[in-house]
Amino acid sequence: METRLGELVERFGGQLQGDPDIAIAAIAPLERAGPADISFLGHSRLRAKAARSRAAALILAPQDDAEVAASYAGARIVTANPYAYFARTAQFLLGASKPAPGIHPSAAVHPGARVDPSVHIGPQVTIEEGALIQAGAVIDAGCFVGREAVVGKDTHFFANVSFHARCTIGARGIVHSGAVIGGDGFGFAEDKGVYIKIPQIGRVVIGDDVDIGANTTVDRGALDDTVIEDGVKLDNQIQIGHNCHIGAHTAMAGCVGVAGSAIIGRHCTFGGAAMVNGHIEIADHVHITAGTLVANSIAEPGRYTGFYPIATNAEWERSAALVRNLGAMRLKIRALEKALKALESGSAAQPQAG
Amino acid sequence: METRLGELVERFGGQLQGDPDIAIAAIAPLERAGPADISFLGHSRLRAKAARSRAAALILAPQDDAEVAASYAGARIVTANPYAYFARTAQFLLGASKPAPGIHPSAAVHPGARVDPSVHIGPQVTIEEGALIQAGAVIDAGCFVGREAVVGKDTHFFANVSFHARCTIGARGIVHSGAVIGGDGFGFAEDKGVYIKIPQIGRVVIGDDVDIGANTTVDRGALDDTVIEDGVKLDNQIQIGHNCHIGAHTAMAGCVGVAGSAIIGRHCTFGGAAMVNGHIEIADHVHITAGTLVANSIAEPGRYTGFYPIATNAEWERSAALVRNLGAMRLKIRALEKALKALESGSAAQPQAG
Amino acid sequence: METRLGELVERFGGQLQGDPDIAIAAIAPLERAGPADISFLGHSRLRAKAARSRAAALILAPQDDAEVAASYAGARIVTANPYAYFARTAQFLLGASKPAPGIHPSAAVHPGARVDPSVHIGPQVTIEEGALIQAGAVIDAGCFVGREAVVGKDTHFFANVSFHARCTIGARGIVHSGAVIGGDGFGFAEDKGVYIKIPQIGRVVIGDDVDIGANTTVDRGALDDTVIEDGVKLDNQIQIGHNCHIGAHTAMAGCVGVAGSAIIGRHCTFGGAAMVNGHIEIADHVHITAGTLVANSIAEPGRYTGFYPIATNAEWERSAALVRNLGAMRLKIRALEKALKALESGSAAQPQAG
Repeated sequence: METRLGELVERFGGQLQGDPDIAIAAIAPLERAGPADISFLGHSRLRAKAARSRAAALILAPQDDAEVAASYAGARIVTANPYAYFARTAQFLLGASKPAPGIHPSAAVHPGARVDPSVHIGPQVTIEEGALIQAGAVIDAGCFVGREAVVGKDTHFFANVSFHARCTIGARGIVHSGAVIGGDGFGFAEDKGVYIKIPQIGRVVIGDDVDIGANTTVDRGALDDTVIEDGVKLDNQIQIGHNCHIGAHTAMAGCVGVAGSAIIGRHCTFGGAAMVNGHIEIADHVHITAGTLVANSIAEPGRYTGFYPIATNAEWERSAALVRNLGAMRLKIRALEKALKALESGSAAQPQAG
Repeated sequence: METRLGELVERFGGQLQGDPDIAIAAIAPLERAGPADISFLGHSRLRAKAARSRAAALILAPQDDAEVAASYAGARIVTANPYAYFARTAQFLLGASKPAPGIHPSAAVHPGARVDPSVHIGPQVTIEEGALIQAGAVIDAGCFVGREAVVGKDTHFFANVSFHARCTIGARGIVHSGAVIGGDGFGFAEDKGVYIKIPQIGRVVIGDDVDIGANTTVDRGALDDTVIEDGVKLDNQIQIGHNCHIGAHTAMAGCVGVAGSAIIGRHCTFGGAAMVNGHIEIADHVHITAGTLVANSIAEPGRYTGFYPIATNAEWERSAALVRNLGAMRLKIRALEKALKALESGSAAQPQAG
Repeated sequence: METRLGELVERFGGQLQGDPDIAIAAIAPLERAGPADISFLGHSRLRAKAARSRAAALILAPQDDAEVAASYAGARIVTANPYAYFARTAQFLLGASKPAPGIHPSAAVHPGARVDPSVHIGPQVTIEEGALIQAGAVIDAGCFVGREAVVGKDTHFFANVSFHARCTIGARGIVHSGAVIGGDGFGFAEDKGVYIKIPQIGRVVIGDDVDIGANTTVDRGALDDTVIEDGVKLDNQIQIGHNCHIGAHTAMAGCVGVAGSAIIGRHCTFGGAAMVNGHIEIADHVHITAGTLVANSIAEPGRYTGFYPIATNAEWERSAALVRNLGAMRLKIRALEKALKALESGSAAQPQAG
């Protein structure tokens, strides 16, 4: 859809420098934006590029405005958080693309499921008995929604999502293709070397405004529920074990794994492929670097890291061999300390003996 | 379904302290269990919680019985392995929930497939020519079973499993949503910088009582088969390369990766995100800690570990810089040893010279 | 299909030692090959096994020919790269197994999609409006192809692939089951602790001869495209973030993760579970070892490694504790150096003082 700069400022605030009637049809990056596009300046280091942009309008921060305005002739929206402003603008411009309500004739919707008339259900979908799909939800092709599962208002399942029995997700969620919500947790009792499955009868309970990435898996709880609070953002190929609890507005990058019964705080971030052991607790505002294994609970906010530094293979072979032999190195240091002390007493004694 | 304590003890053994006619309808955790529930005491540290439980009955170990019985008024089943007993009880109580036999009208079952009349096939399923689905199997919505594949008795595929041509799985298996069994192995011949695909014509051959997690992938063999023996338990998002052989009753936690042609023994365990290099051999009863890369064969049973210890980011930056410079540190120690030796000879010589 | 040795040599070159009319029906490994099979010798260390093979013919390198020929009585094709020759032979022998053209009646193909008459579309497939499926493509059961997506000539999607709107893949590609191409990139603006989604409107643009493994995910670009050049081979469960650029003929093993906006050169290789940080650049001909995190750009070709060496758990506990205390170790070495220097001056001074 098309909008005017005036409408954007009415909706999202910011200070407009320019004509409110300028029409905006699309978003574009600084270097590709043309006379119907709006773009944004995310970092001050891009000022020169912004100044040369042919965008109809730029969203930028107060500290960048003067320098950009000196050579850029288009309109500007000045705001404290240009990236967030751009995000809202982009959502607004692109928001009208929702598919029409209705159920595709190839979908298998159980007569005992409750589907709001405003819902879109694509081809090859399966909705089981007792499931509830609330107003404005979009269930794309090939998705599976199990018995008595609940999909909240305006939540969007992309193609081929599996959302299992009795699990629930709140409003405005996004679940990407191939995600599996509510598979059984990995729970077994060992008896003489053989594993006996513990039935997994808890649910996955997901709050509002949660995004779940492609091929991410969230297991149902064993007896209690797995819980994902409001505003959590999970990237692709993340694994969340049974009975985990992820606090609100925590974000995890791709390939993160969280073992069962981990309790993670609010406003945490996890870099790609970070791993969290089971049955540990992580406080609010903890930030884990990519590739780091969190083996124990973390009680203090802050940034934590633990990965082996990359090097040329030859250098790594040397350093890895030395890491294995750190014990020997320590013994040598102790021996040196002892020998030195002996020598010092000897030396110190000498003058008196002399 | 509902049962009586007497029936549980008849089926699973254990010593009953209490009335065999007490009715049990469900399992529940210690703190939530009520007068129709059975619960269990998994660790002695939970004795106090067990003593306060309002469960109709508790499953517990002999060493915990006296203390719990002192204040807990319900019935007790005393057994050496309460967790395994609980698992069997839970399976028994929940076991009757199998869907009715029959093929959903939206399923595409090739006329040349052989499907036992007791099998349940859900909506949107595809079964290709020559596939064999044995008695009591359940194939949920959206699954794909390829040509001449074999699904054993009472095996359950959750929604959206891909089980490719000629692969086989035995009895009582569980394959969770999004798992892909029998995709091509990653085999290429390089010729002047360009990769030429090696056709992958082996199968995946899976034993009885194997569980495979959501979005886990097991590749077919190149010429020979990939083999997963009886009782293996694979969690979610595990990758098993072509021509691997996983020994019976080995268990792997989420996100583990096993490269091609690795041979893994029986009764091994792998923590989350452990990685195994290709063409290596791991003995029986080897236990790999989470986040550990197994670069070479392991011949001795035991626990093996290798991950960089987590620290605050500032501490990690210091330690990682030192890890890179361990060579320099070793040189300094050597120089110290040499200098000290020189000094010792000097010092030792002095008194005689004095 | 069956062929003759003469036809293989005509097609793929090599020097034939033996009767060109010998019939070949299949490929097989050295030890299982029989009188209708062709096999190959990939490494000189397998010479003895090759010499005992009962294959009708062997493909082998000049340096192995004399020794093998001494005891092996079958025909030989001598070529500089036996593995590549074997790959081409295997493809040729197995190549005729393409399914018949046509659209399965259960598929939901939008009337506004353009599907070449030579295309095979399996059961339960969804093809959306404006999609273009070119000649000879095979779309297996349960796949989803979004609006205006393009699938190139002779490209094969295995069951349950999700290929999203406007993404394109070239000719002769293979996409394995569960792969998700064109899911949204993980882009959010943070505003007062809450994440605001950045709409992801770029595409995924994939070249010719690209293979994508099972459950691998490639995100669409934010504003620009994610690009995968010709001949790239991605194994299973790989995650490629938005706006990445993967150079031609680069290969990645299973479980690799590449964060957003990483630029990776041509002819690179990545071992399993290697991870690449976002916004970095990796030169051509860089080889990353399994389990290694690439935290910064790499400008020089070569092999790079960084993983913690595995050890028995007890040894690891000692070495990991010492890694954490490397700072203390360094201080001790400094103190030793200082004390030694003091001692040396003292010792040196003594004789003069004596």
